[in-house]
Amino acid sequence: MAKERIILGIDPGTNIMGYGLVHQKGNKVLLITMGILKLSQYDNHALKLKKIFERTLGLVEQYHPDELAIEAPFYGKNVQSMLKLGRAQGVAMAAALYKELPIFEYSPKKIKQAITGNGNASKEQVAGMLKTILNFQDIPEHLDATDGLAAAVCHFFQGNNTGDEKKSYSSWKSFISDNPDRLK
Amino acid sequence: MAKERIILGIDPGTNIMGYGLVHQKGNKVLLITMGILKLSQYDNHALKLKKIFERTLGLVEQYHPDELAIEAPFYGKNVQSMLKLGRAQGVAMAAALYKELPIFEYSPKKIKQAITGNGNASKEQVAGMLKTILNFQDIPEHLDATDGLAAAVCHFFQGNNTGDEKKSYSSWKSFISDNPDRLK
Repeated sequence: MAKERIILGIDPGTNIMGYGLVHQKGNKVLLITMGILKLSQYDNHALKLKKIFERTLGLVEQYHPDELAIEAPFYGKNVQSMLKLGRAQGVAMAAALYKELPIFEYSPKKIKQAITGNGNASKEQVAGMLKTILNFQDIPEHLDATDGLAAAVCHFFQGNNTGDEKKSYSSWKSFISDNPDRLK
Repeated sequence: MAKERIILGIDPGTNIMGYGLVHQKGNKVLLITMGILKLSQYDNHALKLKKIFERTLGLVEQYHPDELAIEAPFYGKNVQSMLKLGRAQGVAMAAALYKELPIFEYSPKKIKQAITGNGNASKEQVAGMLKTILNFQDIPEHLDATDGLAAAVCHFFQGNNTGDEKKSYSSWKSFISDNPDRLK
């Protein structure tokens, strides 16, 4: 199956957003770039959301990805943090939706599982495995970058391993019923 | 103080989004339009978010509001519902941020208080008071429309009553510290 596509992976947060872009050529996957957007210097919550939206839109316009893969935890410490996280996810997703990109969501556990074979792997283990898979020299200082990249590579693996390359959840309900372990 | 501005008010949700637009001319406030976006027919969560983004962007492009007022509960039943709500808010806010509109958030209680003088007023009471203030004929079938409109009128009152017309919260932290009653 010779398939070519560019995947943008994002790990949105309210302090740092990590992202990575990979180029799939058939069974090969090549690193395009990865990076972070630091948000902690912005005191204003709306400004943080604006920066997330702008950077995501900028990445889409610069690299023309075919699909967005997003790391999306479905549970969290409390309702406050989930509302903030939901907003950060929402603005990143809006940039993709605006450009008609299909969105694929993966839980942190699923991403770790796909990259390392262990759903409880550390960020360092994920980064180390990505270094091997994508053959890059240095692991970046902020592992948020490799977290974003991991979402993209996870999505690449999904397409390759299962052949079920376009499974996006048709509804929140079906997602939850398929992923009961995330309802904590 | 003769001030003129157009305010877009939004009550974003994952089943129905309500919105209203008002035109402030000095101390007067005039209804431009109000309406709803039904989302329950879309099974796909991402599609709902796309529709919210598109409608909000469409309203901004059609009516050129100067400011966005958004009804934003800061607590909810559980982390799942807050994540969904956060996403809905996020995509609506992204449309405003994209067009450089300042965003002002108001809790449901604050909006009810501003419109009716009672923070625990019913939706019907809010709709009834808006009918009087804005002099419209019929209360719409879906009170989500008047909920969105109420956010806009609440913001109008803030500007008029306090003179503190541009108080947007500089950070989540300052918002929370100013509104301890919302941390439930």
